[in-house]
Amino acid sequence: MKNIDSLIYPRWIIPIEPDYQVFENHVIAINNGIILDIIPVGFENKYNAKEKIVLSSHAMMPGFINAHTHTPMTLFRGMADDLKLMEWLQHHIWPSEKTWLSEEFCFDGARLAILEMLKSGTTCFNDNYFYLKSIGEACRQSQMRASLGVCALDFSTGYGNNFQEYLKKAEEIIEQFKCDELISVNIAPHAPYTVSDQSFSEVKKFAERYQLKIQIHLQESIEEVNESIRQFQMRPVKRLYELGVLSSHTQAVHMVHLTEEDFSIIQKSQTHIVHCPESNLKLASGFCQVQKCIEYGINVALGTDGAASNNDLDMLGEMKTAAILAKAVSQNSSALNAFEALKMATLNGAKAMGLSEKIGSLVNNKHADMIAIDLSYPNTQPVYHPISQIVYASHANQISDVWVKGKQVLKNHQCVFLDEQEIIEKANLWKTKILGESL
Amino acid sequence: MKNIDSLIYPRWIIPIEPDYQVFENHVIAINNGIILDIIPVGFENKYNAKEKIVLSSHAMMPGFINAHTHTPMTLFRGMADDLKLMEWLQHHIWPSEKTWLSEEFCFDGARLAILEMLKSGTTCFNDNYFYLKSIGEACRQSQMRASLGVCALDFSTGYGNNFQEYLKKAEEIIEQFKCDELISVNIAPHAPYTVSDQSFSEVKKFAERYQLKIQIHLQESIEEVNESIRQFQMRPVKRLYELGVLSSHTQAVHMVHLTEEDFSIIQKSQTHIVHCPESNLKLASGFCQVQKCIEYGINVALGTDGAASNNDLDMLGEMKTAAILAKAVSQNSSALNAFEALKMATLNGAKAMGLSEKIGSLVNNKHADMIAIDLSYPNTQPVYHPISQIVYASHANQISDVWVKGKQVLKNHQCVFLDEQEIIEKANLWKTKILGESL
Repeated sequence: MKNIDSLIYPRWIIPIEPDYQVFENHVIAINNGIILDIIPVGFENKYNAKEKIVLSSHAMMPGFINAHTHTPMTLFRGMADDLKLMEWLQHHIWPSEKTWLSEEFCFDGARLAILEMLKSGTTCFNDNYFYLKSIGEACRQSQMRASLGVCALDFSTGYGNNFQEYLKKAEEIIEQFKCDELISVNIAPHAPYTVSDQSFSEVKKFAERYQLKIQIHLQESIEEVNESIRQFQMRPVKRLYELGVLSSHTQAVHMVHLTEEDFSIIQKSQTHIVHCPESNLKLASGFCQVQKCIEYGINVALGTDGAASNNDLDMLGEMKTAAILAKAVSQNSSALNAFEALKMATLNGAKAMGLSEKIGSLVNNKHADMIAIDLSYPNTQPVYHPISQIVYASHANQISDVWVKGKQVLKNHQCVFLDEQEIIEKANLWKTKILGESL
Repeated sequence: MKNIDSLIYPRWIIPIEPDYQVFENHVIAINNGIILDIIPVGFENKYNAKEKIVLSSHAMMPGFINAHTHTPMTLFRGMADDLKLMEWLQHHIWPSEKTWLSEEFCFDGARLAILEMLKSGTTCFNDNYFYLKSIGEACRQSQMRASLGVCALDFSTGYGNNFQEYLKKAEEIIEQFKCDELISVNIAPHAPYTVSDQSFSEVKKFAERYQLKIQIHLQESIEEVNESIRQFQMRPVKRLYELGVLSSHTQAVHMVHLTEEDFSIIQKSQTHIVHCPESNLKLASGFCQVQKCIEYGINVALGTDGAASNNDLDMLGEMKTAAILAKAVSQNSSALNAFEALKMATLNGAKAMGLSEKIGSLVNNKHADMIAIDLSYPNTQPVYHPISQIVYASHANQISDVWVKGKQVLKNHQCVFLDEQEIIEKANLWKTKILGESL
């Protein structure tokens, strides 16, 4: 008999690999943070486990991977809604960021975001912001997995004055978190309209030198596309392709208003797309043609975007929106089916972030980043197909237990390493300061 | 000092009337199921209340009105998803309905739906189905408010053999519930493609005789529109207008693919629209141009549709989808703002159902159909604007307390009059039977 850490007995297991599989009457064996085995109940007596956990009305699956967010923006949640995009950015978001961003703000905002994400089943996120040291610190405190995207642009912010300075910050962040097994770093040139050709060339070399993934906001709006055509005589996708920035190491976020040429560039360059449907709807940016991306063989991951433009960080809600919206956009009610949506929110995110060797599915030897969803709630009863109930009918509060690399971070709906009350009090202090200043 | 039933002290009150109002430091006085007063804290000492309820992190608002659903279909939730519309209807939904519908099935399904709706803040719904006696019985048992829509069509079902028989059933239902103050009855000719001109004329007379509202599925898909043009040489909206069926007593459900002529017919006939965005997306039906409806001065209510095509009955989720989708569809990020979405989900529903004298807003002398939403959860922190947090970031589990006509039906997240465990066990028995039959 082999001594191991845990045996977990859920009602259903949805491993994501292989496709469409649902195991019943199976048990998951975990040791040292690694998935050792998924076997039929009755065959686990070869293991002697320190703990046995029975989850009799729950589905177990890999944790959600939120492939695009700006965690500190939770502190601006709901501050300014229902505005024209440029009014929102120029009169609300940018001035607020200019006034308030700091290491302390980003630490408090990231912790609020991580609290919300862990409680709704996200075990890994790709951030895209400033003051990443604090965001990484918030991850360490909460035992959350993340890739920290150092935002870089040709403008001055409180975090840096020019493109070189942002790259310098990225080097510091790489150094600071190089020994952290849950934290990786990526470089995030902001967008085609805030980064010059010269800077894109530098970022390409920088990413190669440090073997980093690149994440870019790309073709988020028709205005961006039109401006690129005016200034560079080509669409943003083509411009970045010619600059050599698009590859299998790049994540293009948003990607609305795509032409056939855009699709084929994304396909041949093996660029990943990060779809943020609720942000695209709320900001009236447009519709990403997800079904067509799938038909082109493009890997599409899912992200919530920041809380200032969504306004929650709930991957279950985002997944439902993605799945039903894709059907209307493609005029095909069998487009982006429930399993494909679930894979988009897990394994596809891991692939985009270069982490699919470790996470994104429940298979032997991967890290045990797992969530349990309790399907016994009225809104998910009765259960004909657990995958359908998860994607189309379940709510974030049904996430009961969450593990990151085998360590339980949410236990019966309560965060293990975060003090919920303190985090919310801090958020309220920030609100009071921000309102005081603007009154 | 006047003796009354309750004084309730929430953190915020959103009365819906007047528009955009948010009261702080106010108290609601309730007596005999009626809103007696909403006054600043400190002025309530003229009342001697049997109970005082303090809800220090909650927003109080009128209960949601789900203006279109098919409650018993909860028992088919997730049974068949991601299919082409006709395959879904002809090979799954219709055969299942033919085999399984009965008074018992509809009673159990309606109770599951009501349980889900009460727990997510819906205090009134407009049903549209068969076996309404049982659905009304489920409402009585749970103290839920509803309008029971007797579905009528030119086809035979287990409930009736011809149009006359459905009208006969409607007469029985009117008789059965005439003394129930929470239950009203409406007549629901199914759709333009299942009801003849002759039957529409009869339904018009029938509705006038009994002073009933009429609810119709109208222009749900482009196929329906094209078929109408082929068969009647006009679009469904025009055909029904010429038959005299469209008026301020009529609710047209879905209404995608509208032309300028359709808009102006709806406007001049004062027909109400019931928007079901998640169903329209999931079935790839298309997009209702909600912002344009508002500009035409049309009253737009909100519905979830049945659980077989959504798949939850969550008005908070539906409201968020409506608000963000309207922005993308109209290419205007200030379309259908948070307050307008909240009004759509409450007062506009009451107007459509002819109940706005009684419910839909928190004003003196209306019935106390009210909900409390706890905004202290991480996903709705910090609170700059409670209306924004409710519409864009809150989840159904934040509904803590619900009252229908002053009677508390949900207390600290628990249904007062329904046995949750028993209802879920019944739902599972039906699933077992249905799966057994089809295996």
